[in-house]
Amino acid sequence: MTLETILERIRPIDEQSAQEATARHTRLTKPPGSLGELEALGIRLAGIYGTTRPRVTGRGVAVFAGDHGITDEGVSAYPKAVTEQMVHNFLRGGAAINALSRVAVSDLLIVDVGVDGDLPEHPRLLRRKVARGTRNMLEAPAMTRDEMNAALLVGAEIAHSFASSGTNLVVGGEIGIGNSTSAAAITATFTRSGVREVTGPGTGLDEDGLDRKYRTIEEVLSLHQPQPSHPLEALRKIGGLEIAALTGFYLGAAAERLAIVLDGFISTSAALVAAALEPQVRGYLFASHCSTEPGHAIQLQHLGLSPLFNLGLRLGEGTGGVLAMPLMESAAATLSEMATFEEASVATARPT
Amino acid sequence: MTLETILERIRPIDEQSAQEATARHTRLTKPPGSLGELEALGIRLAGIYGTTRPRVTGRGVAVFAGDHGITDEGVSAYPKAVTEQMVHNFLRGGAAINALSRVAVSDLLIVDVGVDGDLPEHPRLLRRKVARGTRNMLEAPAMTRDEMNAALLVGAEIAHSFASSGTNLVVGGEIGIGNSTSAAAITATFTRSGVREVTGPGTGLDEDGLDRKYRTIEEVLSLHQPQPSHPLEALRKIGGLEIAALTGFYLGAAAERLAIVLDGFISTSAALVAAALEPQVRGYLFASHCSTEPGHAIQLQHLGLSPLFNLGLRLGEGTGGVLAMPLMESAAATLSEMATFEEASVATARPT
Repeated sequence: MTLETILERIRPIDEQSAQEATARHTRLTKPPGSLGELEALGIRLAGIYGTTRPRVTGRGVAVFAGDHGITDEGVSAYPKAVTEQMVHNFLRGGAAINALSRVAVSDLLIVDVGVDGDLPEHPRLLRRKVARGTRNMLEAPAMTRDEMNAALLVGAEIAHSFASSGTNLVVGGEIGIGNSTSAAAITATFTRSGVREVTGPGTGLDEDGLDRKYRTIEEVLSLHQPQPSHPLEALRKIGGLEIAALTGFYLGAAAERLAIVLDGFISTSAALVAAALEPQVRGYLFASHCSTEPGHAIQLQHLGLSPLFNLGLRLGEGTGGVLAMPLMESAAATLSEMATFEEASVATARPT
Repeated sequence: MTLETILERIRPIDEQSAQEATARHTRLTKPPGSLGELEALGIRLAGIYGTTRPRVTGRGVAVFAGDHGITDEGVSAYPKAVTEQMVHNFLRGGAAINALSRVAVSDLLIVDVGVDGDLPEHPRLLRRKVARGTRNMLEAPAMTRDEMNAALLVGAEIAHSFASSGTNLVVGGEIGIGNSTSAAAITATFTRSGVREVTGPGTGLDEDGLDRKYRTIEEVLSLHQPQPSHPLEALRKIGGLEIAALTGFYLGAAAERLAIVLDGFISTSAALVAAALEPQVRGYLFASHCSTEPGHAIQLQHLGLSPLFNLGLRLGEGTGGVLAMPLMESAAATLSEMATFEEASVATARPT
């Protein structure tokens, strides 16, 4: 498997199924349009799965973990060691994503692509460490080309493995202290926005910390001059191992025709890279929520996506994406399972 | 069981559990506040269930069905017969609420309190018909006192029965052609709003139909002069059998300390009556969505509730409420199941 073969396999969604689903929705036993945005969701799922009656056959979330050399610059409210500590928490079932995955009946995989620490064997952990964190991107590109390619392919491998086991609704989550700095640099680059527009407090920086984060990102961008027209070069210089893996995960999932629910600011930064590499990926992406991190709304607008809810989340891990899974499946189920007016012998609206 | 005994059993939510839950949330392995509105939801569930670690033990939706004499005035886009036809559709599993209940793993009960038609025995149908629809409230009070009381007690009975079987998260849904006219009259009365502010197209009236609906409701209010200080008299004159049953359902659910998720404009009109009868009911109510029906936002504001999402729904049946169930359970699960920083040996935020 190479990145090129994955990109080649990504096709537009099936417009004919989507059109037939649109027509079907007007015949179902409800006032036309009364399911609001669920109707458009279901129609897009019809296009992705290539059937007028889409069915979610399995839900899965993969949480990609990696460390960031840029934490040396004091850009996070938490110490770097928290990445590894939180992976242990995921494995013991104590994190938010564990509780949410249980409620959503979603498979949960943790993928070490770049944690700076040694993790034990565990049935929920995929050990795919590419490096022990990225380089400090204030001094050097975050990754080598080999590291980035390896991380991209890890993500694509997970998407393929979900598809093979019948999972067709997926979320990519992440953990990595320092990764909102990388995500902000990516977002400024790909949406051509100012650093201060897209950079926020992450896990909870105070005003001084946020100011330091602004200046750090501005220096990083000035040093590397990343260009949206060269997405892989940009990813390599200012990305992270878990962000590269997420990018590969989205590309692989689109190639497998899976519906992809985005989570927050970090996970959506990887979607910017994926969509720059292959614009057809957008047809497979859904926004779950809009984070309080200021760059998230800008990312979603750039991708042409509207969030399903707005609950003031800013946690990452895939939490918002997993919360949206039942809404996604509900959109598919109403379209697929409801009776038509004719089947149910229900009268349609009369002229008033 | 009488209405008085139910009202007496309604207590404030348990503030001590809510306070302990608030403290617990700051110790869980996530940046404080990062679960946004889910945190406040979980805290209120702690207060309702009287425990720091609330658990949703079962989900249930009851759809109350009733007909409306006011349909004689041409206030709906659908003929009256559709109420009975849709009940058959619910029993055969072909409606939106069937698909959504399946996805949400929610019990689904259909309750006939006032359908103008004979319905068959069916395991999912509770036959509690009080009358074959209401009177045309342009000519007479919609219900007699006995009819209204009987419908209220049907609702309370269902809440009690959910509680007995371990269901502690409930939604009240409704079907009844013409009931948005009754809901608008109730909303104008209890929120002291103008008819044109709170009245919308319902299932899909055109402009002429909407104008007729405005004038009908204005005449109804002018005839009956309902007063928010006399909630039962108002309900009797301008309500519906299914709206009375929903009112009793909310009162009964609050008495049983169940968490109640509101659906749309009709189901929330019953909550206005319930809250007027016993203000403590508000502590047990949650808003799911905000409907496109213009009066819904006014109702929610009056009740002091914020919707969890805004998907442009306008279907009723309980659909929006059932869609919110996983979010409610997720709020409880994160609060109850997550590890604290201490338990998980995760470092807390450092000063920046």
